[in-house]
Amino acid sequence: MNRRMVFRIISFVLLIEAIAMLPALILSLVFHEPEATRGFGITILLAISLASIDFLFPPKRNSLYATEGYVITALSWIIISVVGCLPFLISGALTNFFEAFFEIVSGFTTTGATILKNIEGTYRSLLFWRSFTHWLGGMGVLVFLLAIVSMTGSEGNMIHLLRAESPGYDVGKMTPKLKETAMTLYFLYIALTILEFVILMICGMPPFDAICITFGTAGTGGFGVTNNGLAAYNPACQTVATVFMLVFGVNFSIYFLIVTRQFSEVKINEELWTYLGIFTVSAFLIAFNTLSMSPNFKTAFHHSAFQVASIMTTTGFNTVDFDLWPWFSKTILVILMFIGASAGSTGGGIKVSRLLIAVKAIRRQGNKILHPRSIRVLRMNQKGLDEAIVQGVLGFLATYILLLFGSVLIISLDNFNLETNFTAVLSCLSNIGPGLSAVGPTSNFTAFSNFSKVILSFDMLLGRLELFPVLILFNPHIWRRNSGRG
Amino acid sequence: MNRRMVFRIISFVLLIEAIAMLPALILSLVFHEPEATRGFGITILLAISLASIDFLFPPKRNSLYATEGYVITALSWIIISVVGCLPFLISGALTNFFEAFFEIVSGFTTTGATILKNIEGTYRSLLFWRSFTHWLGGMGVLVFLLAIVSMTGSEGNMIHLLRAESPGYDVGKMTPKLKETAMTLYFLYIALTILEFVILMICGMPPFDAICITFGTAGTGGFGVTNNGLAAYNPACQTVATVFMLVFGVNFSIYFLIVTRQFSEVKINEELWTYLGIFTVSAFLIAFNTLSMSPNFKTAFHHSAFQVASIMTTTGFNTVDFDLWPWFSKTILVILMFIGASAGSTGGGIKVSRLLIAVKAIRRQGNKILHPRSIRVLRMNQKGLDEAIVQGVLGFLATYILLLFGSVLIISLDNFNLETNFTAVLSCLSNIGPGLSAVGPTSNFTAFSNFSKVILSFDMLLGRLELFPVLILFNPHIWRRNSGRG
Repeated sequence: MNRRMVFRIISFVLLIEAIAMLPALILSLVFHEPEATRGFGITILLAISLASIDFLFPPKRNSLYATEGYVITALSWIIISVVGCLPFLISGALTNFFEAFFEIVSGFTTTGATILKNIEGTYRSLLFWRSFTHWLGGMGVLVFLLAIVSMTGSEGNMIHLLRAESPGYDVGKMTPKLKETAMTLYFLYIALTILEFVILMICGMPPFDAICITFGTAGTGGFGVTNNGLAAYNPACQTVATVFMLVFGVNFSIYFLIVTRQFSEVKINEELWTYLGIFTVSAFLIAFNTLSMSPNFKTAFHHSAFQVASIMTTTGFNTVDFDLWPWFSKTILVILMFIGASAGSTGGGIKVSRLLIAVKAIRRQGNKILHPRSIRVLRMNQKGLDEAIVQGVLGFLATYILLLFGSVLIISLDNFNLETNFTAVLSCLSNIGPGLSAVGPTSNFTAFSNFSKVILSFDMLLGRLELFPVLILFNPHIWRRNSGRG
Repeated sequence: MNRRMVFRIISFVLLIEAIAMLPALILSLVFHEPEATRGFGITILLAISLASIDFLFPPKRNSLYATEGYVITALSWIIISVVGCLPFLISGALTNFFEAFFEIVSGFTTTGATILKNIEGTYRSLLFWRSFTHWLGGMGVLVFLLAIVSMTGSEGNMIHLLRAESPGYDVGKMTPKLKETAMTLYFLYIALTILEFVILMICGMPPFDAICITFGTAGTGGFGVTNNGLAAYNPACQTVATVFMLVFGVNFSIYFLIVTRQFSEVKINEELWTYLGIFTVSAFLIAFNTLSMSPNFKTAFHHSAFQVASIMTTTGFNTVDFDLWPWFSKTILVILMFIGASAGSTGGGIKVSRLLIAVKAIRRQGNKILHPRSIRVLRMNQKGLDEAIVQGVLGFLATYILLLFGSVLIISLDNFNLETNFTAVLSCLSNIGPGLSAVGPTSNFTAFSNFSKVILSFDMLLGRLELFPVLILFNPHIWRRNSGRG
């Protein structure tokens, strides 16, 4: 492992984080929050100092291999979270490191699970910062890409980072030139962000709220700035959020195809239509199931569509307390928590495309016992699927389930009920935010022990980085090779 | 499809069922239960009549293909359950067909989930019958094998039925001569049954109870004959049951290896040692976790070991109300509900060997992202594993999870909480019996709607027949080919 190069890139990421904290620092001055100003100021200086130390020792080689890619990815997310949570601690807004770490991991992983009890009583510059981490986390892939490109000037290295961090497995197939692709995604992400912000303002949302909610939507994060989430705004704002949550849950390559006028490719994209199909069916089922709780079908559907979009895209905003819904509706939400958004979006979860491939593989397995000698290649979007991808998807599912129940077991030591533990872990692993019962939309994660908070933080990282980049940190071979070559 | 041959075999199975009902008929006379006598008498006559009609039309060909094997398997279990539940209805012990069907499906699938509210108030001959269905279900594989062998005289046909019904995927690899294998398994099953019965009697259990509890243990079923399960007997009896539950949860090929003195094969059997390891670790963890609820560690371990053995082997007996345990202990039980017993045992669940293979596949997948070009064959019991088996196992897991959540969604229409629905379906799919919350060990499944009872019955059949033989009944191709060739 090229250890110096790993440090170099992580230092670079720390510098970016210091720069990214400047808007929050300025806001703390504007809002006259001296404690927060101190928090951001000290943290920025610390990040720059840490990064500077590394720049005294230039790496001998620029080369990066797959292992480095994964290690950089996983370590970066952990380190920016450790540094990113310092303003909360220095300002005194939070006093427990594990809670601050949980909050910012939740931000960067675009989860949106919170331990804050009184959101409106928290410094607004800190609220801005945690929402901004959603936006940064959501474009994590692109930031990384550009960082590496600008540092090494070599596109060949990038593929390792791209593979490690892409939310799904088919990002980057859009154009052979990776840098160009990254720039396009980056542009789309920023353009859609600005569009949502402007429309929310037009619908009457205050500017500060509009920018934070937009960050939360774009990154499919879900941190809000009021104590009762998006219930605080008018129905028009809620509908705008519904639409944009769905927009950010679509595979970004779809927008690329639209921009480049490849409409026939969009038409045959199975993931896109399945994603929209699952949304529509779920929204209608819940609207009918919760009809008696609303004055009319329109209102029922308004809230149902919002909540379904929010959970499915793994954003996690809410306009009603869905923990009060009948169990049929809540079970739909739990299933959507598993499924998540599309591959290549900012959303989390297992992803619609993986579900599609799994269902195809299952159907083939059923047919195989009838025709044992048949060999059939699975197809997706009218193209043959590599068997390695099929096995990778099934292996991913098995890993997801194992990590889910392993984590549920560990946090069950806190003796919350199964509903709470199961949905808490699921919500963290799929980067959603709220769960059910004691972690429902009107509650928060404070009640868990520090140990459980670490486990749940770890689950958020696992989910955001598609499990394996985090898991391989536990492979002793990586660290052993380190001493041999580093 | 050779439709006449399918009918012929199902008719043969019905005849076996009629014969199997004779002991219960005799018991009903001994216990002076005239209503039950009427129930068994009419059912036996009906079964014989139905079977006789078929015997008027001999099949033209004796050949059987894989499709027929699966269709026979799935249809037989459904039909023997429909017929087997008639004594409950005719005697008036139950008045709702769906409840009676649920109860006997639960019997034949060796689940042990019950809808009976007052077990001690039920005719004892009916209790005997439902326990006996556990024993019959447990040796379903062998009965089927022998039935086919005796009918067709051809061993080549058997492989299809064996594959369809074997609890796991590696039954029948023990000797190349299938008939001999079946006879050996059959003998072992009966010998162990007699052994348990005798030991339970020696420990002071009344004969009627001892025979029923033995049937429940051997088939890993779990129907009892008292209102408070095995809490009604002395600790010695409970310990005997613990040991025999564990014994019947072991892959029967292990006993075959022991009998034929192949001890080195036993020593390297990964499933056996993992199975015993999971039992031991779980039993100790729960004993420590529930220590404060017991007078001393010995008692805590006694109950912990019993409950762990009961859930893990998917038997479902209980000596304490584990729904009152702390959540850490209950979560361990939920995880054991997934895992289940060993392949090639009478137990259900995903099976320890599948879990082992899945973990190996996951570890390989993690290594693969570090060494993308490496190709490594997985090994089990010091032999290479076929990739088709690995993919089959991962596909099985995905199917299990999909069916689990699909069923939970459907039964959530009854509006029970997630704990109840989740553990009810899991318990049925893994053929265990009790779940948690409203289907905990002191409760029963009566409260569910008839529709949910059908879904749960279906889950029990799916679990017992390793999912796919039941699922392919929904493949329209099977029935279409039927009209073409039958």
